[in-house]
Amino acid sequence: MKNLKGRAVFAQSGGPTTVINASIAGGLIEALNQDAVTGVLCALNGIKGVLTENFVDIEKEDLSELYALKNTPASAFGSVRYKLKDLEKDDTDYRRILEVFKKYDVRFFFYNGGNDSMDTCDKISRFMEKEGYPVNVIGIPKTIDNDLDLTDHCPGYGSAAKYVATTLSEARLDAVIYESPLVIILEIMGRNAGWLTASAALSQITGYGADLIYLPEVPFSLDKFCSDVKAVVDKNRVCVVAVSEGIKFANGKYVGEDASQTDVFGHSSLGGVCGVLKSAVKSIGYKCKAIELNILQRCAAHCASKTDIEESFESGRQAVIHAVNGETDKMIAFKRVSSSPYKIEYEGVDLSLIANAEKKIPLDWIEKDGAHLTQKYIDYALPLIQGEPDRRMENGLPSYAKLKKIKFKID
Amino acid sequence: MKNLKGRAVFAQSGGPTTVINASIAGGLIEALNQDAVTGVLCALNGIKGVLTENFVDIEKEDLSELYALKNTPASAFGSVRYKLKDLEKDDTDYRRILEVFKKYDVRFFFYNGGNDSMDTCDKISRFMEKEGYPVNVIGIPKTIDNDLDLTDHCPGYGSAAKYVATTLSEARLDAVIYESPLVIILEIMGRNAGWLTASAALSQITGYGADLIYLPEVPFSLDKFCSDVKAVVDKNRVCVVAVSEGIKFANGKYVGEDASQTDVFGHSSLGGVCGVLKSAVKSIGYKCKAIELNILQRCAAHCASKTDIEESFESGRQAVIHAVNGETDKMIAFKRVSSSPYKIEYEGVDLSLIANAEKKIPLDWIEKDGAHLTQKYIDYALPLIQGEPDRRMENGLPSYAKLKKIKFKID
Repeated sequence: MKNLKGRAVFAQSGGPTTVINASIAGGLIEALNQDAVTGVLCALNGIKGVLTENFVDIEKEDLSELYALKNTPASAFGSVRYKLKDLEKDDTDYRRILEVFKKYDVRFFFYNGGNDSMDTCDKISRFMEKEGYPVNVIGIPKTIDNDLDLTDHCPGYGSAAKYVATTLSEARLDAVIYESPLVIILEIMGRNAGWLTASAALSQITGYGADLIYLPEVPFSLDKFCSDVKAVVDKNRVCVVAVSEGIKFANGKYVGEDASQTDVFGHSSLGGVCGVLKSAVKSIGYKCKAIELNILQRCAAHCASKTDIEESFESGRQAVIHAVNGETDKMIAFKRVSSSPYKIEYEGVDLSLIANAEKKIPLDWIEKDGAHLTQKYIDYALPLIQGEPDRRMENGLPSYAKLKKIKFKID
Repeated sequence: MKNLKGRAVFAQSGGPTTVINASIAGGLIEALNQDAVTGVLCALNGIKGVLTENFVDIEKEDLSELYALKNTPASAFGSVRYKLKDLEKDDTDYRRILEVFKKYDVRFFFYNGGNDSMDTCDKISRFMEKEGYPVNVIGIPKTIDNDLDLTDHCPGYGSAAKYVATTLSEARLDAVIYESPLVIILEIMGRNAGWLTASAALSQITGYGADLIYLPEVPFSLDKFCSDVKAVVDKNRVCVVAVSEGIKFANGKYVGEDASQTDVFGHSSLGGVCGVLKSAVKSIGYKCKAIELNILQRCAAHCASKTDIEESFESGRQAVIHAVNGETDKMIAFKRVSSSPYKIEYEGVDLSLIANAEKKIPLDWIEKDGAHLTQKYIDYALPLIQGEPDRRMENGLPSYAKLKKIKFKID
C-alpha cells in the first residue's frame, strides 16, 4: 500500500465505446476532488500522449462539460494503435514513461481500455515497481466485447447490447409488413466472444426478437444454418438472424475469411460473414437483407443504457479512490452481489490476472441447438440495459461535451 | 361536399416509416370519436386487405394500445407490393373494391402511404365518383423520401432525418479518435430525391458534421469526389461523407448500378454506391469505412422526432375530419405558416396533383460545389427534428403497441 501525493495522468486506448468517456469523466471529476492529487492531466491518444508529453490540463475544463462526457460517445481524448515495445526485449518505451512520470511528478496513472490496455497497464506498473518509482497504476475497463475476465461484465457492454436489441426489434417490425418470406441478417461485432451477438436474445422482450443467434463459441455449419432458416421461414415467414462477425467453421476458419478465399478472381470485399450468409439464404430461394451494424453499435450514445453510463462513471471514480488509497496494479472490476434486485460492488482485481485472459459465454448458457441463448443469459444481461440516458440536447440533436483541451506545461 | 355516414376503412401501403403508425393511430382514434363513422376497420396488407375482405375491428382494440402506435415503427397493419390493375385497361380490381365498399357500407376510405398510394387513392376516388357510389377518400401521406409535392414536408421525414444526423455525428466522433487519416461513408436512402441525404447537413449543429454531401440532384463525378475527399483529409485528417443511394453520373447512369457492370465476372453484389466509393477512396490511399444505413433509417423509432410523431398523428386526425366534413379525393398536406416560430397548418390538396409528381431539393438550396447544403435547407429542416418521443419502455427496451387484430365480420 503506497499512499502517494502527486499528479494523476489519465489516458484512453483501444476501440471506443458509447461510455468510455463516462468512465474517464468519473475518474477526472473524482481526481479533481482528491487532496492527494496535485494536478489532473489527460494524455492525448493513449500511451503515445505520455511518450510525447502531450497532456491537456483538466483543471482548465468546465465541470459541466466533464459531466457532459457521460453522454458523449467515443474516446474524447483520442486513442492509439501504437503498441509499446516488448518489455523483455526493449525497455526504451518504459524508460521514457518513467522519465515523463518523474518530470511531471506523476503518482497516479489510469489507463482506460480493453484487454491490451490492461496488459500495458500491468507492464507499466511492474516496471515502475522494479525501478523503485512509486506510482499507483489502475486500469479502468471498457469493451463492448464484454470479454474481460474476473469482472461480472464490462463498461460499454450494456449500452451496445441495448442498441443491438433495440435495433433488431425495429428491423423485425420493418421486416414483417409484407406477406412474402424474408430473411434479415444482422452482423454484430465480437471476434472471439459472442457476448454482444448474444444480446440479440434480449429483443424477445419486445415481442419482436431474433429467431436464430450464431456465436463464435459454437462451430458454424452452412448446411445447418440453411436448414435452421428454412424451418423458421416455413413456420413464421420471416426469419431474423443475429450473427457474430467471428463465427468459425468446425475447421477453425472464420466464415468471413472464407468468402474471400472461395473467390478465384480475388474479389475479397464481398462483405464477410454477411455476404456469405446472404448468398446461402439466396441459394435456398429467399429474399434476404443483410445489415452490418458496423461502428454504430459501439457509438450509439442516443440508445445507451443508463445503468451502463452510471456504472462506467463509478468505475472511473473507484479507480481514483483505489489509487489514492494506495492500491496499484489493479483493474476496477464489477462483482455482482445479486441479480434480483440487481446490485454490484466495485473491487480491484490483479491486472496480471486480467491481461491476456478472454472470457467467453459459458457453454451452458447456449441452447443445445447452438442457435439460442438460455434464460441464464437473459437473467445475466437484462439488468445491464436498464434506464434511458439523461442527454443534453440542442436543436433536436445531442449536445456533446465541449472540451478546451488546453495543453499542460510545467511552470 | 358529401356529408356521409357509414363505416371507415383504413389501410397502409408502401415501405414503412418510423411514424406511419402514428398517422394511422391519429386517424383511427379520431374515427372512433366521430358520430358519422359507424364502424372503424383496418384492412390488412393495404389494398389487398380490401380486395380480400381481410379487415380487423378497431373498436375491439384497447385505446392505450392505439396510442402506443405513436411509438411503434413500421406498418402495424402490414403493407403490400400488389399494384392495382391499370384502370384504363382493366377495372376488375376497382369493381371488386366497390363491391366490398357496398357490402360493408364503407363511406370513408383512408390510404396511408407514399406517392404510389396517393395515385391509388386518386383512382379509387374517381372510380367511385363515376360509379355514383358516395364515399369520401382521403390520402394520409408518409415517406422518409420527403418527395411528395404540394406539402411542405412529409410525415416520416423528420424522424429519419433526425436519425441520420444523430448517427452521422456519432460515427464522426468514433472516426476522429485515431491520428491517422480515415474516410467514413454513410449511404442513405432516396433514389431520386436527396432530401434524406441532405439531412446529414443538420449534424453540423452537434459540432460533428458531414464534410461532403452528394445528392441525386447533382450529377456525380468520381474524379471530383476523390479530389473533394483529398482536400478534406489534407486539411482535417478525417472526412465524413454522406451519399445518396441514388447518385448518378452525368450520363444518367446510377453510380451503384455501374459497380455491377464494371465487374466482368458478374459479381454484382459489391455493395452498390458504398462499394464504388470505398474503392475510389482506397485508390487514393486512405482507409475507408462504408456504412449502409439500410432499413434502420426508416424504422429507428428510438430516435424519432417528437414533432414528426405529433404531426403524423394530427395528419391522420385531419384526414378523418376532412372526410367527415365532406371532402374527398384529397391528401392531407402540411402548409408552413412560419418557420420562426415554426408553425404549420393542415389542408386538403387534390390527389390528382400529388400523384406522380416528385419534389426534389431546390437547386438553390445546394452550394455551388455540389457537396454542401445552404442555410436555406437548414432553416427548412431543423424544425422537423425537434423533440424526443415519450416512449413506453419495458425492461429497458421499447414496449410496442399490442394489437388484438380481431377479424371484422358483418353480422
